[in-house]
Amino acid sequence: MKFPKPYPLKEIASIIKTKYIGDGNLLVYGTNEIHRVKEGEIVFVDHPKYYDKALQSPATIILINKEVECPKGKALLISEDPFRDFNIINTRFRNFQPQKETIAEDIEVGEGTIIQPGVYIGKQVKIGKNCLIFPNVTIHDHTEIGDKVIIQSGTVIGGDAFYYKNRGEYYDRLKSVGNVKIEDDVEIGSNCTIDRGVTGTTIIGEGSKLDNLIQVGHDTVIGKKCLIAAQVGIAGCCNIEDEVTIWGQVGLASSLTIGKQAVILAKSGVSKNLEGGKTYFGSPADEAKKMLRELATLKKLAK
Amino acid sequence: MKFPKPYPLKEIASIIKTKYIGDGNLLVYGTNEIHRVKEGEIVFVDHPKYYDKALQSPATIILINKEVECPKGKALLISEDPFRDFNIINTRFRNFQPQKETIAEDIEVGEGTIIQPGVYIGKQVKIGKNCLIFPNVTIHDHTEIGDKVIIQSGTVIGGDAFYYKNRGEYYDRLKSVGNVKIEDDVEIGSNCTIDRGVTGTTIIGEGSKLDNLIQVGHDTVIGKKCLIAAQVGIAGCCNIEDEVTIWGQVGLASSLTIGKQAVILAKSGVSKNLEGGKTYFGSPADEAKKMLRELATLKKLAK
Amino acid sequence: MKFPKPYPLKEIASIIKTKYIGDGNLLVYGTNEIHRVKEGEIVFVDHPKYYDKALQSPATIILINKEVECPKGKALLISEDPFRDFNIINTRFRNFQPQKETIAEDIEVGEGTIIQPGVYIGKQVKIGKNCLIFPNVTIHDHTEIGDKVIIQSGTVIGGDAFYYKNRGEYYDRLKSVGNVKIEDDVEIGSNCTIDRGVTGTTIIGEGSKLDNLIQVGHDTVIGKKCLIAAQVGIAGCCNIEDEVTIWGQVGLASSLTIGKQAVILAKSGVSKNLEGGKTYFGSPADEAKKMLRELATLKKLAK
Repeated sequence: MKFPKPYPLKEIASIIKTKYIGDGNLLVYGTNEIHRVKEGEIVFVDHPKYYDKALQSPATIILINKEVECPKGKALLISEDPFRDFNIINTRFRNFQPQKETIAEDIEVGEGTIIQPGVYIGKQVKIGKNCLIFPNVTIHDHTEIGDKVIIQSGTVIGGDAFYYKNRGEYYDRLKSVGNVKIEDDVEIGSNCTIDRGVTGTTIIGEGSKLDNLIQVGHDTVIGKKCLIAAQVGIAGCCNIEDEVTIWGQVGLASSLTIGKQAVILAKSGVSKNLEGGKTYFGSPADEAKKMLRELATLKKLAK
Repeated sequence: MKFPKPYPLKEIASIIKTKYIGDGNLLVYGTNEIHRVKEGEIVFVDHPKYYDKALQSPATIILINKEVECPKGKALLISEDPFRDFNIINTRFRNFQPQKETIAEDIEVGEGTIIQPGVYIGKQVKIGKNCLIFPNVTIHDHTEIGDKVIIQSGTVIGGDAFYYKNRGEYYDRLKSVGNVKIEDDVEIGSNCTIDRGVTGTTIIGEGSKLDNLIQVGHDTVIGKKCLIAAQVGIAGCCNIEDEVTIWGQVGLASSLTIGKQAVILAKSGVSKNLEGGKTYFGSPADEAKKMLRELATLKKLAK
Repeated sequence: MKFPKPYPLKEIASIIKTKYIGDGNLLVYGTNEIHRVKEGEIVFVDHPKYYDKALQSPATIILINKEVECPKGKALLISEDPFRDFNIINTRFRNFQPQKETIAEDIEVGEGTIIQPGVYIGKQVKIGKNCLIFPNVTIHDHTEIGDKVIIQSGTVIGGDAFYYKNRGEYYDRLKSVGNVKIEDDVEIGSNCTIDRGVTGTTIIGEGSKLDNLIQVGHDTVIGKKCLIAAQVGIAGCCNIEDEVTIWGQVGLASSLTIGKQAVILAKSGVSKNLEGGKTYFGSPADEAKKMLRELATLKKLAK
């Protein structure tokens, strides 16, 4: 999530009332996820297991719960609770505001785009040209939609991420301030749910087609010209490369990479990265030819 | 379902035009499901297999299709068709009424609660403080929602139960007159469906978090601090104890008990009760370590 | 899809600027799918594998990309791109028109039918008597609904088919101009998606009951008195015969026939036609007794 304008590090530190290591005048441009973060942005880390990954990421500022050595050219925000303080920073710059009207006044809509009745559109949404938004669709704040996009009835674009920290007594919610970007020529079926990024952007790539009742988790990036059948569930932070085909009711665990032109057969459950150009099946999924051999073996043994 | 006031048994008997055995002045407080029924309430039973269970339940009045011996302190309503007569009693005291306005006039909403556009709220709904109800949510009659509850877009709270009796020529609908109770700090994702109890209450316990596109059947009780991932389906009358974690696309058959702190891995299909504190996998699901050993065995044999 | 009135073949040919073989005065009544097409209708075929099937179907006019021998009494429309030209014909006679009002003015609604707030109803929809349409339902153009039908909240009837041709550079959409027919006494749960036929009709047969979050693909025909549990996904062009029972989270591939009174157990994945009167399980699904024997064999081997 990009701040409305860059802020000096010392000002960010004062918002969360914490000390910093590094140049207080360093400009901070926003917050982001560890796998998407860019120069000038803040990333947070609160588990020693991920310290190195965060410190070596492109992030310029690391919000961390230990005074480690500060990498050159970077800065640290030292916090007893980076998760809490990340929420504080994010909601300071982009907080949810209730909306009275069904369609926010500050949206941009391109020529030729049709918005059917019952649609809710949140603040600062951009919709391109010649799109068709069917009835009872919900499009949350900051969503960006390209040209010639079709979104069928009942679909929810930009719902909050399902991301919690177990505090023992309760689950603490990581606040969602990211968004969803839907590229040109994407078509999405009815009653789907495409969650927005926590601080980053969930992306549906150009020309991809989604059927009905599909779940796409926060910060997942779907490539170009993918075909995704009904009731598929893709967890958060996945990378689905271009031209991947996923048949009905497949499930993908979080943070997986599915290689270009991979095909995942119906009802598979994917728990690991999959190389491109191959066909997969089963739960846990493996190469289809292996899985089918195993099923044939079992049939023989049972006789 | 609680009657608006207690009625003497003889009056209930006259509504369904049937005879009764027991004290006609006995006060009847409402109707309920066999696994939730309390003193003073009616339960119905129409299959000899369940006669004993119904007669020995805490129910004071048993609506039954055979003149059996009446347990002491209880009463029987003798009906040729208890299913039909249970429907008649239930709809006599709580019948569906169409509604013209998007938000019923008789609801209670606590301070700080935000209701976004496109939300439908039925009659006698209570919503606590500081809740956030996102656009295009449907909340049916009699739903009770605690404080700090979040319900995301497109979710339906209190839909009718999927409960039918096969009459040979047709399926006969058991009318739903129960409700849904959502306790404090619960968060529910987009496009979920939480059905109401037939006569009882479907409950989502305090602090539980549900992702998108989740189905919760009628009269199911989910405990406190459960975590339920996207596209999980929980059939009716289940007891999910506290701190259970259910990963994506898991399915649970009806009337199951899942013990405290059980973890059910993604895509599992659960067909029997599961002890708490363990991890489960597969369809039909069993302990994960057993299931993984079986999968490894099969891989070895196929080679 | 029936044309508003019959047109002579030569007029249809001039719309798509193509030559025809046969009697130019032959009256054309509409377009249809290969497995439903009737006399007087056009079917399209663009793959040599299906030429014979199309030529031998009851279709009177075959829109085809090769000059084959014309069967007696029939006619051919010779097109370099039948998929494109089928779209042109279909959208010429039934094109999507945006709608400003939540409920179109030209619908028919029978006596005793209740339509709750937030419902969208498209053009030329017919709804019978004593139906109950719950809040936030979407019913698209040309849907036909019988008597005593219940449709619960958030359900979408008549969404567009998920049907694309891979053009190499992009997926080309087959335009949906068909509809959905819901017969008497059908009950459909919350947040379901029932897609309309491409040119034909998706049918839910009399007395069938559907739970929540169910997907029914385009041109699928569900028979009478079927029982379908939550989160089932049925792909396009299936024939589900009468009194079939499908339990939760089952998936069916496209174009399958499921015989009368078949029972498919929860979480099964069906990839082939299933004979009636038997019980099935597994993914890929087979007779339940076989599948359970295989599972038992594996358990034994793993010990």
